[in-house]
Amino acid sequence: MSGKKYVYFFAKGQTDGSAKMKELLGGKGANLAEMTSIGIPVPPGFTISTEACAKFYDAGRKWPQGLDKQVSDSIKKLEKATGKTFGYGDNPLLVSVRSGAAVSMPGMKDTVLNLGLNEKTLQSLIEKTDNPRLGWDAYRRFIQMFGDVVMDVPHHDFENILEKVKKKAGVKLDTQLTADDLKEVVKQYKALYKKHTKQDFPSDAKSQLTKSVDAVFNSWNNPRAVKYRKINEIKGLIGTAVNVQTMVFGNMGPTSGTGVCFTRNPSTGENKFYGEFLMNAQGEDVVAGIRTPEPISDLSKEMPAAYKELIKIREKLEKHYREIQDLEFTIEEKKLYILQTRNGKRTAHAAVKMAIDMLKEKLINEKTAVMRVKPEELDQLLHPMFDPASEKKAKVIAKGLPASPGAATGQVVFDADTAEKWAAEGKTVILCRIETSPEDIGGMHVARGILTSRGGMTSHAAVVARGMGTCCIAGADGVVIDYKKKQFKASGSTVKQGDWISLNGSSGKLYLGKIDTVEPKLHGNFGKLMKVADKYRKLGVRTNADTPKDTAVAVEYGAEGIGLCRTEHMFFEGDRIISFRKLILVADTVKNLKNQIENTVDEKEKAKLEKQLQQPLKQYNEALKELLPLQRKDFEGIFKALKGRPCTIRLLDPPLHEFLPQDSKGQKEMASIMGVKESVIKAKVEQLHEFNPMLGHRGCRLGLTYPEISAMQVRAIMEAAANVKKKGISVKPEIMIPLIGHVEELRIARQQAEEVIEDVFKRRKLKKGSIPYLIGTMIEIPRAAVTSDQVAEYADFFSFGTNDLTQMGCGFSRDDAGKFLGDYVEMGIYEKDPFMVLDTEGIGRLVEMSCKLGRKTKKNIKLGICGEHGGEPSSVKFCAATGLDYVSCSPFRVPIARLAAAQFVIEKKKN
Amino acid sequence: MSGKKYVYFFAKGQTDGSAKMKELLGGKGANLAEMTSIGIPVPPGFTISTEACAKFYDAGRKWPQGLDKQVSDSIKKLEKATGKTFGYGDNPLLVSVRSGAAVSMPGMKDTVLNLGLNEKTLQSLIEKTDNPRLGWDAYRRFIQMFGDVVMDVPHHDFENILEKVKKKAGVKLDTQLTADDLKEVVKQYKALYKKHTKQDFPSDAKSQLTKSVDAVFNSWNNPRAVKYRKINEIKGLIGTAVNVQTMVFGNMGPTSGTGVCFTRNPSTGENKFYGEFLMNAQGEDVVAGIRTPEPISDLSKEMPAAYKELIKIREKLEKHYREIQDLEFTIEEKKLYILQTRNGKRTAHAAVKMAIDMLKEKLINEKTAVMRVKPEELDQLLHPMFDPASEKKAKVIAKGLPASPGAATGQVVFDADTAEKWAAEGKTVILCRIETSPEDIGGMHVARGILTSRGGMTSHAAVVARGMGTCCIAGADGVVIDYKKKQFKASGSTVKQGDWISLNGSSGKLYLGKIDTVEPKLHGNFGKLMKVADKYRKLGVRTNADTPKDTAVAVEYGAEGIGLCRTEHMFFEGDRIISFRKLILVADTVKNLKNQIENTVDEKEKAKLEKQLQQPLKQYNEALKELLPLQRKDFEGIFKALKGRPCTIRLLDPPLHEFLPQDSKGQKEMASIMGVKESVIKAKVEQLHEFNPMLGHRGCRLGLTYPEISAMQVRAIMEAAANVKKKGISVKPEIMIPLIGHVEELRIARQQAEEVIEDVFKRRKLKKGSIPYLIGTMIEIPRAAVTSDQVAEYADFFSFGTNDLTQMGCGFSRDDAGKFLGDYVEMGIYEKDPFMVLDTEGIGRLVEMSCKLGRKTKKNIKLGICGEHGGEPSSVKFCAATGLDYVSCSPFRVPIARLAAAQFVIEKKKN
Repeated sequence: MSGKKYVYFFAKGQTDGSAKMKELLGGKGANLAEMTSIGIPVPPGFTISTEACAKFYDAGRKWPQGLDKQVSDSIKKLEKATGKTFGYGDNPLLVSVRSGAAVSMPGMKDTVLNLGLNEKTLQSLIEKTDNPRLGWDAYRRFIQMFGDVVMDVPHHDFENILEKVKKKAGVKLDTQLTADDLKEVVKQYKALYKKHTKQDFPSDAKSQLTKSVDAVFNSWNNPRAVKYRKINEIKGLIGTAVNVQTMVFGNMGPTSGTGVCFTRNPSTGENKFYGEFLMNAQGEDVVAGIRTPEPISDLSKEMPAAYKELIKIREKLEKHYREIQDLEFTIEEKKLYILQTRNGKRTAHAAVKMAIDMLKEKLINEKTAVMRVKPEELDQLLHPMFDPASEKKAKVIAKGLPASPGAATGQVVFDADTAEKWAAEGKTVILCRIETSPEDIGGMHVARGILTSRGGMTSHAAVVARGMGTCCIAGADGVVIDYKKKQFKASGSTVKQGDWISLNGSSGKLYLGKIDTVEPKLHGNFGKLMKVADKYRKLGVRTNADTPKDTAVAVEYGAEGIGLCRTEHMFFEGDRIISFRKLILVADTVKNLKNQIENTVDEKEKAKLEKQLQQPLKQYNEALKELLPLQRKDFEGIFKALKGRPCTIRLLDPPLHEFLPQDSKGQKEMASIMGVKESVIKAKVEQLHEFNPMLGHRGCRLGLTYPEISAMQVRAIMEAAANVKKKGISVKPEIMIPLIGHVEELRIARQQAEEVIEDVFKRRKLKKGSIPYLIGTMIEIPRAAVTSDQVAEYADFFSFGTNDLTQMGCGFSRDDAGKFLGDYVEMGIYEKDPFMVLDTEGIGRLVEMSCKLGRKTKKNIKLGICGEHGGEPSSVKFCAATGLDYVSCSPFRVPIARLAAAQFVIEKKKN
Repeated sequence: MSGKKYVYFFAKGQTDGSAKMKELLGGKGANLAEMTSIGIPVPPGFTISTEACAKFYDAGRKWPQGLDKQVSDSIKKLEKATGKTFGYGDNPLLVSVRSGAAVSMPGMKDTVLNLGLNEKTLQSLIEKTDNPRLGWDAYRRFIQMFGDVVMDVPHHDFENILEKVKKKAGVKLDTQLTADDLKEVVKQYKALYKKHTKQDFPSDAKSQLTKSVDAVFNSWNNPRAVKYRKINEIKGLIGTAVNVQTMVFGNMGPTSGTGVCFTRNPSTGENKFYGEFLMNAQGEDVVAGIRTPEPISDLSKEMPAAYKELIKIREKLEKHYREIQDLEFTIEEKKLYILQTRNGKRTAHAAVKMAIDMLKEKLINEKTAVMRVKPEELDQLLHPMFDPASEKKAKVIAKGLPASPGAATGQVVFDADTAEKWAAEGKTVILCRIETSPEDIGGMHVARGILTSRGGMTSHAAVVARGMGTCCIAGADGVVIDYKKKQFKASGSTVKQGDWISLNGSSGKLYLGKIDTVEPKLHGNFGKLMKVADKYRKLGVRTNADTPKDTAVAVEYGAEGIGLCRTEHMFFEGDRIISFRKLILVADTVKNLKNQIENTVDEKEKAKLEKQLQQPLKQYNEALKELLPLQRKDFEGIFKALKGRPCTIRLLDPPLHEFLPQDSKGQKEMASIMGVKESVIKAKVEQLHEFNPMLGHRGCRLGLTYPEISAMQVRAIMEAAANVKKKGISVKPEIMIPLIGHVEELRIARQQAEEVIEDVFKRRKLKKGSIPYLIGTMIEIPRAAVTSDQVAEYADFFSFGTNDLTQMGCGFSRDDAGKFLGDYVEMGIYEKDPFMVLDTEGIGRLVEMSCKLGRKTKKNIKLGICGEHGGEPSSVKFCAATGLDYVSCSPFRVPIARLAAAQFVIEKKKN
């Protein structure tokens, strides 16, 4: 004996449910109850709860005990509320049966209309409406829907019959069929139904209802619905609700009609009633597109009273829901009914405008305004977009990862040099590579878009592109690139160098040919929303930027400083690479000889070694001398653009082999520039080769084995700071030592840096403290995280490099994980790609542990994050919860981080 | 005013120091005091403490306050004790001044003899001894030593003078010089001294003493001594002590003499007095090798009384020190003096025998016996060794890392195939490779020794070689290999295929030509010592073994089971590689098609895909079917060899590309065997290529994406277990899932394994529990360590894979770290190579954390370690301290681990 309540009734003055019961009644059912309770004219009905659906499955697809009685009782109540009778009588009660989960879910069998009709009630309906055509049309629709939804009679078999009858009648549209034609349709439909199901079409209304409810329950787990939930990562729902509602007819004649409308413009956000309607039509007809609906404003002419009521309802609903509403209405012989309301889907653009407008209108408060826009939606506002109409027409030839949002159209090139050459000639280029490397930086910089056939969301191409705000599709493995032939193949098309292609970096779609793009506008409302958000935000937001240009963009977007300035990008531009390669060629010779000299006791041997050292040391020092002023100038530019904001600069990080040409042509060129044999270059490349470059000779390991490089960088930073300060701009450099694993590394690196800084202060005659600087470290190696109490001794700040921390902590390289990470996410091992969304359970534990240990040693140690996760909303919220001081992300993600950080504070207060 | 005691006097009945004061008095000084206190005839003297040396440096190389007075007072006491006077009088007091730190340290200036001599005391000495030659010889030695040690007068300038005088006198030996000759030598020495120092040779005895003490203090920090401490990692010492001791003369005539002896044979451990002596000679003469010393037993004939006394002293010292003693003695006119005693240096062989002998003799107890042998010394007992005499004569041509101990002589080959071919022909081969890969396994197995020019102590070659107990030198970067020419060059020598070379895997030295080897014997004493150790040991010791042969060896050495059985080695032997390659060729096609089929709704499309799947699936299943019986047989062999001991079997771990030929020749061969185009193989190799294979598609990631492979392995394991059990041998399989990072991986892998096990039980009609099995995981990914509370839910055991945990935790790959790890150890960043000695501060924290979290979830979870560290003594002790249940190491390291584990228990009780 179960006393459990499964059925929730709604009719004027008799409402069991409310909008808060979405989980239980589904979105549709909850809103029907809510509307009823606030006096909106809703056709009465009842909702069978999602719990009933769950029990249905628990019991092996059987109705739970008590449900049948509750449904019967509700039908009785419905008969009473409407004055109609179900399945018999002069005034028959017809109902619709609709699925409705807490989240909208295409794929479920969703609607049966006109349920309750049989040969007898059909006659009553015809008599009552004096409209045989309406009656027969309603009946044939019911048979078709019931047949399809409940009994799996193929939809197209019904359509075939309809077509044949139309042909016979010599008409084109369904609406042109007469009552007699429809009678013929019904006859053939019933025959089809019997042929397919071996049963007569049911005439008992209760049985019709029971079977329809079963069908809706069953459709919750049909393959399409399951697939949809999987793809859209919809979890935690227990089932669908079923809404049974009195039918109303918009096709009862010239004073009837139906429409769909939004309380505001969902595309622009404009506060103007928006929608369309059709007179003498049913809901499907509006969507079907056979007749062209009229704009909603015209309803005021057709039916002024109904329109006036609708306007009032619009206001009432917005005031009640405080959010844009998407309504369906039907007018049955002048009487207006609202069939459905829900929060309207809108563009990011509209969302921002409405949040600010509603705030002004005092419809919502600041906190609600801030919560109204999903941080990730802001992406849409920050990148060029394809013109939707043009994009629709274009041919998709491949799909990759949406690595950096935006849209780009351009001519394909297959190497960075050509990209630069063509760009210099004024061409718009798309750089297409199997994968990119730091050598490609020049080409990536000038490219309108970047396409790679290999690599993930945090591959080199993706990271750099996001940093630059350049549209990028990564890992489009359907694209087979042939560098030799300078072409790629995809979906049977061959694209040659110079051909036009288009990239949608937000969807990952690659198109053949040109597509028109639309430039984004940074609306005033967007700025206003950000300001409101900043009132609540506590977490700082910085940016990852390596150039004055990127810095300026980021500051514009509200960055409060630079959290990660990668200095290695500065070694690639122009002639610098030559100087740096000069250095690389002799670096280890210099190091080894110096070591040998230090360890040699014999004076003669020492002298011999010192002589050997001269030539390479000269070259080494020359290279450093060439690089120093260039780096200094870089930093000056960035410091100026920051206007006094702090700047975390990471010393050289990538392994040296990344700076050498890997291909024979490049090696030949380099040899000729350096004036050495090609074999020397090849030997150096071979010598520097690493099995696992990710875990190789890079980061502080370079600075410790070649301290002169770090010293040059620190000198450039501090001299630049001194120069900029002289111009009256304050500078806050924060020197960041990368890839620390052991406190001793940091202790030594810090000491080396401080010696240089002291020297700069002395030479420039600066007072101690006149340029406030910090020295800190990335926490990106697990060992550093678990020994952060020790590391903090020598660190003024920690910046979590969550890309590498994820790679090493999870033990997979971002460039290789593609081979299994997809399967992993599919299997639910990781809920999301941990390179996109911080794995808070695992890597997050390391971050939390490190923060705790670091603060134990140094209470006020500054804590930030500079990995790619710094611009991903849920990761930003994790950082806020963990008590970090700031996040840092690419310039175009700064607003996203600001909004996410504000939302964190608001959400936290709620809970 | 410092009342600090710096000087410790020793003379019969007047001893301030003791053997326990080594830190303060140095080893030599402490033992002189100790001997004096137990009544051994020691020439009286005093020791200036190491604290005085430290204060000397603190004060900028000046004597600390109070030292001067204490030295003067001690001289007075010495005069009183000996009845002699210092620097004057008829019976002059002559002393020796010797350095002596807590640890023996070559490189310090160490000895000045005959101090106190001047023109006057020389005459007194001559008169008193009636031996002018002795007097002048003593004086010239004093001047030479003082000049060299205190004033840095070049040693060879003194030698030149001596040579000239000898030439003039027409003699060959120093001893042939007359008193007059020596007088001439003294004259010229003094002139040299004055020329070099611009001072007269000092005649004031106190001043001689002061300067000598200064010189000893200063020599503590001379470059050679500093270097020695650095190389030998001697840390924590504060300085050297200085021993001032009354001179006795073994060269006073026919009833005088001197000798050096050991209380037992330091080479064999035999309990027999061992040593040699010279009559009428000074200590240096014994060492100098000009006269051939006589065996100590002959002293009984020469001077029976002195010998009898010496024998008594031998017994007394051994009883007192309970350890082999290394003594120096002098007989001055029939009176025996002991000048020094210290624990004797001995071979591992001797150490083991002595420990067991002394235990039998009740000289020491069991705990002491166990502590007597350093675990790492046991290596010497377990591997073939070069005959020392032959090795001395051989030419060293390169030096690499001592990657796997032992010695090997053989003919060089440069590829595994040739190694196998030649070995089959009965040749002894040394496999020489730039680096080895799993493809080389066959060749490595048959090679007597392995030499690589690249890679570290835990490179593939090193790990495999240690596992096999095969001698190996890794990373000998002086060896330049030319595969094409089939030769290598080193130190100017060219070694061609077929030439003989010799490897000392314990020292890393590579020799040209053959060297005779000596096979090790597993002495009975060694077994006895192990048994005693096992009484105290609590930690379990297992082995890493992949073959029945290795397993049997390990069991012989006391392994209590297998802690790591790597199944991948089993895929390389013979034709198996062909089956496995067949599988690899189609694996991802099968996987992708299966995925597509699962996700396809359209039935037609589904059918099409299923047809496409047929052929590759057939090949895939065939390969699995071929592999199953082979694997099963492997496991049967191992289970039998284990005789009921537990066996942890790791499922396939390395990335698939390791199983494909990387070179063109191999690819061609494979293509022809498989009957496919070469391009197919090349494309697969290219497709499987990884940027960071260490962080790639391997371990459980393979098993999860290709579950059929794991299923085959699990089936092979359980069927083998069933077969062996049927023969009455109990079997305890422990299935280990490698490379777990996330609990979900383990949950799924475990479930898959359990399904297979259930199926085997069903088919074999086995009762539940009749074959007790465990399923657990490696903890080798940092994420798994920090989420071990979660992982433990599905793990019956954890086995710490500290190799990979070190790589990922520290963020450096063992194959690449060579480029900086040397510098790092030199800089003291890591005290030791963390691949050799577990980094307990960092990686150890992860291990501790994981144990704690794991036990929190599952109190009795079994914990072990199977990384290379499992056989390294200090790491073994860490494992014991952390509360692991067992360590696992290569067979030849099992005794080492057993001893280390026993010592841990004994050391812990002490503290």
